[in-house]
Amino acid sequence: MSQYSAPIDDMHFVINDLCDLDGIANLPGYEDATPDLVDAVLEEAGKLAADVIAPINHSGDIEGCRIDNGIVRTPKGVKEAYAQFVDGGWNGVPFDPEYGGQGLPWLVATALSEMWNSANMAFALCPLLTQGAVELLSAHGSDELKGRFLEKMVSGSWNGTMNLTEPQAGTDLARVRSKAERHGDLYKITGQKIFITYGEHDMTDNIVHMVLARVPDAPDGIKGISLFVVPKFLVNDDGSLGERNDLRCVSIEHKLGISASPTAVMSFGDNGGALGYLVGEENNGIRYMFTMMNNARLAVGLQGVAIGERAFQQARDFARERVQSRDASGKDPAPVTIIHHPDVKRMLMSMKARTEAARALSYYTAAKLDTAKRHPDEGQRASAQALVDLLIPVVKAWSTDNGIDIASTGIQIHGGMGYIEETGAAQHMRDARIATIYEGTNGIQAIDLIGRKVARENGESVFVLMAEIKDVIHKLKAHGGDDLTIIAVRLEEALDGLKTATDWIVKSYSHDIDGALAVAVPYLTLLGNTAGGWMMGAAALAVTNSAQNNEPIGSFGAAKIATARFYADHVLTDVSGLCEKVISGGPSVTGINVDEI
Amino acid sequence: MSQYSAPIDDMHFVINDLCDLDGIANLPGYEDATPDLVDAVLEEAGKLAADVIAPINHSGDIEGCRIDNGIVRTPKGVKEAYAQFVDGGWNGVPFDPEYGGQGLPWLVATALSEMWNSANMAFALCPLLTQGAVELLSAHGSDELKGRFLEKMVSGSWNGTMNLTEPQAGTDLARVRSKAERHGDLYKITGQKIFITYGEHDMTDNIVHMVLARVPDAPDGIKGISLFVVPKFLVNDDGSLGERNDLRCVSIEHKLGISASPTAVMSFGDNGGALGYLVGEENNGIRYMFTMMNNARLAVGLQGVAIGERAFQQARDFARERVQSRDASGKDPAPVTIIHHPDVKRMLMSMKARTEAARALSYYTAAKLDTAKRHPDEGQRASAQALVDLLIPVVKAWSTDNGIDIASTGIQIHGGMGYIEETGAAQHMRDARIATIYEGTNGIQAIDLIGRKVARENGESVFVLMAEIKDVIHKLKAHGGDDLTIIAVRLEEALDGLKTATDWIVKSYSHDIDGALAVAVPYLTLLGNTAGGWMMGAAALAVTNSAQNNEPIGSFGAAKIATARFYADHVLTDVSGLCEKVISGGPSVTGINVDEI
Repeated sequence: MSQYSAPIDDMHFVINDLCDLDGIANLPGYEDATPDLVDAVLEEAGKLAADVIAPINHSGDIEGCRIDNGIVRTPKGVKEAYAQFVDGGWNGVPFDPEYGGQGLPWLVATALSEMWNSANMAFALCPLLTQGAVELLSAHGSDELKGRFLEKMVSGSWNGTMNLTEPQAGTDLARVRSKAERHGDLYKITGQKIFITYGEHDMTDNIVHMVLARVPDAPDGIKGISLFVVPKFLVNDDGSLGERNDLRCVSIEHKLGISASPTAVMSFGDNGGALGYLVGEENNGIRYMFTMMNNARLAVGLQGVAIGERAFQQARDFARERVQSRDASGKDPAPVTIIHHPDVKRMLMSMKARTEAARALSYYTAAKLDTAKRHPDEGQRASAQALVDLLIPVVKAWSTDNGIDIASTGIQIHGGMGYIEETGAAQHMRDARIATIYEGTNGIQAIDLIGRKVARENGESVFVLMAEIKDVIHKLKAHGGDDLTIIAVRLEEALDGLKTATDWIVKSYSHDIDGALAVAVPYLTLLGNTAGGWMMGAAALAVTNSAQNNEPIGSFGAAKIATARFYADHVLTDVSGLCEKVISGGPSVTGINVDEI
Repeated sequence: MSQYSAPIDDMHFVINDLCDLDGIANLPGYEDATPDLVDAVLEEAGKLAADVIAPINHSGDIEGCRIDNGIVRTPKGVKEAYAQFVDGGWNGVPFDPEYGGQGLPWLVATALSEMWNSANMAFALCPLLTQGAVELLSAHGSDELKGRFLEKMVSGSWNGTMNLTEPQAGTDLARVRSKAERHGDLYKITGQKIFITYGEHDMTDNIVHMVLARVPDAPDGIKGISLFVVPKFLVNDDGSLGERNDLRCVSIEHKLGISASPTAVMSFGDNGGALGYLVGEENNGIRYMFTMMNNARLAVGLQGVAIGERAFQQARDFARERVQSRDASGKDPAPVTIIHHPDVKRMLMSMKARTEAARALSYYTAAKLDTAKRHPDEGQRASAQALVDLLIPVVKAWSTDNGIDIASTGIQIHGGMGYIEETGAAQHMRDARIATIYEGTNGIQAIDLIGRKVARENGESVFVLMAEIKDVIHKLKAHGGDDLTIIAVRLEEALDGLKTATDWIVKSYSHDIDGALAVAVPYLTLLGNTAGGWMMGAAALAVTNSAQNNEPIGSFGAAKIATARFYADHVLTDVSGLCEKVISGGPSVTGINVDEI
């Protein structure tokens, strides 16, 4: 079993050189986030991830969760690791110090989140959802509600869950049927929810469910859904735990992966109704929930990065140890470690390049989120938010598509050993496979991207992004040299494809919506590949610039340029085909009668 | 759980219209293979697959195999289903009637093999390997050896296994260390073998292991390996079972998928040596084993097709039932079955188009194999064999890469339900994941393709293939019409890419072998995508021609043209990017120092 080691050098580089930590630390409230402090935080988090959370990843997968009479037990060691995580204050990194948080930028929290997910994705899901619930309550809860729940949730002593899905209401939340009836200041909630991650477990004293339900006479559809806070144990005014609420875990699912995380079927109100607190106003629940979902979508995109990194490390370590076959180009008949074989190198570089590109893009999005939240200038906030809105579906879908493929490539590098569960390579693919589905399938992300973002604003945010990319191309060309020039040329070709495809989406969406929706996924992939290339180009530029400032380029810089070059040759080259699919692939989907499929 | 239904219409079409069953039935010895008989065989096999073998697929996955004191028990129902399979004579379909086979073409056996693998890949592995062993013994065994083993193996009463891999010798068989010492007419075999599929189980009276080992003073490396037949029970001269041989199953693996098939660690000679029969001559074992491997590579490629078909059927059935969200382009607010959503249609069509293309290409290869074996004209045999040699690594690797991706897309269509094991969609991906690894990883197939095939013969067989493709393009253009013209244009673009990439491989292999090996996989994918497009183009042409012969085009024909058009727009469009990777992606792999990875 390979060890996990947090890629702190690359995280430091991305945070400082690509995401302008200095600028983020200048935003009001983020003054503590100096480079030195951030480095120290990364170092400490890396230790916790490697020494405490990663070692229970494989054992947790094998053991899984068990349910007995409504009580869910997590695998051996998880409870203790979680207690250490909470004690260290790690759950509250990006939150308001007023409620016990550390008040650090999302940029930093994002790097830490990558570590937790690399170490143990099933484990990391618990804080992932709690953080979304904290965001939601912070943004939309009353002071009373915040006072009652937030401090414990910020610390992680209580976890938060998202109760959206019902058997008939998955993607389509308009079909939610759970009910809420007024009961004094509170509501009585009844209904069944499925796919509730950490809906029941033994790691915290209380579980705080965010539940979508309908009040009587609510309008049909999406505009008749309200949001409630429904704790497992009621909370007294003094903060102590009160009675057990009328909700229970009916069963947990047997899943392909993330087996150490319980996925619960929850039943609310079997004995008259679970007591819940309304968040904000009635019938406004979907809007509030989207606060949580946007946060969670970025976090899920990051799971793609995290699993990619973990799978890469494991495959690289294996390839450095496994001896098999001679060097094809050499004369020595002795077998070599397989990392020397060109096809294995290609696979490893593909894993590495796409992981680094996706890391950079997701951290960049987090930095823009910090700017959107904290910048003193309203215009700056708005333009940062527009970029966040554009990039979140891309980070979510593109990174997680990559995550599956990278984890699968990791298995391939292991050969037969990759198919044996004890090696651990297969678990990464099984774990990664959920990330393209939950928090809105990747198809939904693509539809969101082309509909709510690109088409609605006539491509404006994409054109802003393209101007940034052009700037990097210009600088790469100005520097010259083989690698930087090739990267610039490939990026320019990709940019042309992005322009053509975006124009087509904007033009088509209004008069041929089905034709546009049919190519939404290829469009998202095209945008992701190009934006990833932009990040890798900017990275190659940054290490070159550092070298020109009389620092030697060093092994990190040389590897970064080589990786950016690989990305350009092996990933950006897909853009032309994707563009062709976008601009002419619609009719061969829409023209088919469903009976012919 | 979705039912499996053999795609007999498409199988019939491919066998008759794309693979010229009439021509095959004219070959000496294949006279019985009339269209009517073949249809009847497909029909019967389809029933066995659907009614007997498919129903134990999911239960077998859940239960898995168990080992207790060296005895391996297969899951409930497997033994009975296998007995039915043997009783029906299905194991002997392509084999010599002299040994009890049916003497039918490989073309027909290939279609049946697809059915068994769609129904239950873990089950189908047993006959898959037995058939390889039968091929091997038929080709290289003495009459004495054939007399002793073949009839029982043709019927499937005894199964055959491949004992190649040892812990230090996977891809690199030169490192095999197992020993064989002469003992009268036989040999005593000692050593450990791993990853032995059906190496021990409870379905047959005897297990016939094909084992690679070295005789004393054998030359080092690949030229010092001999091949032995080592039965679990010795076989007396009268054909009855004799003593238990000195071999045992030490353990079985816990795998990602194909859990109903035991993967054994075998130990030979713990008590002095297992008795084995030499096949052919000493030190010639690798050459004999390649007979078995070539057969098995085609069969494994077919597993990619089979899993693709099964995953497609399951996803399509789900999409026809699952109601979620309204039609985006309509005015009706009522939700529709998800097959109506453009992105779901795109995913389903991608599954369908790639499965049909891979089916056609693998059956075509099987038909060429029949020609290579039976054609009275030596030149015809040789040219068919050259095409088989070229296409086998493509069918193996390209179909199985597709198989994984198609099975993964099937999960995606299911949404959250796809991640729950009881749905069955996830099993297909877990099962499919092995097929890119065993019988030579797909990287090895690609290296074999560019080295032993394309470069060695200066691209000659590819150019023969290209002439065939050109002919189809020409005919598509001559017909005209929107769909056929677009297919022709896309295929022509792909053909240009294949030409450019092949020229590059031929030119580079001799002076920059590492650079060529670094892009072997993209080259194989390019060739697969293009050859698949050729098959789909030929299919579109065939249904159009039928229609012009005054048969109405019908729903099968319309669907085939639509599927071919989809393939052209959504798969052939990848060729330009693949070509770019081949001709310019090498340096960004070979230029990297392994310490930088």
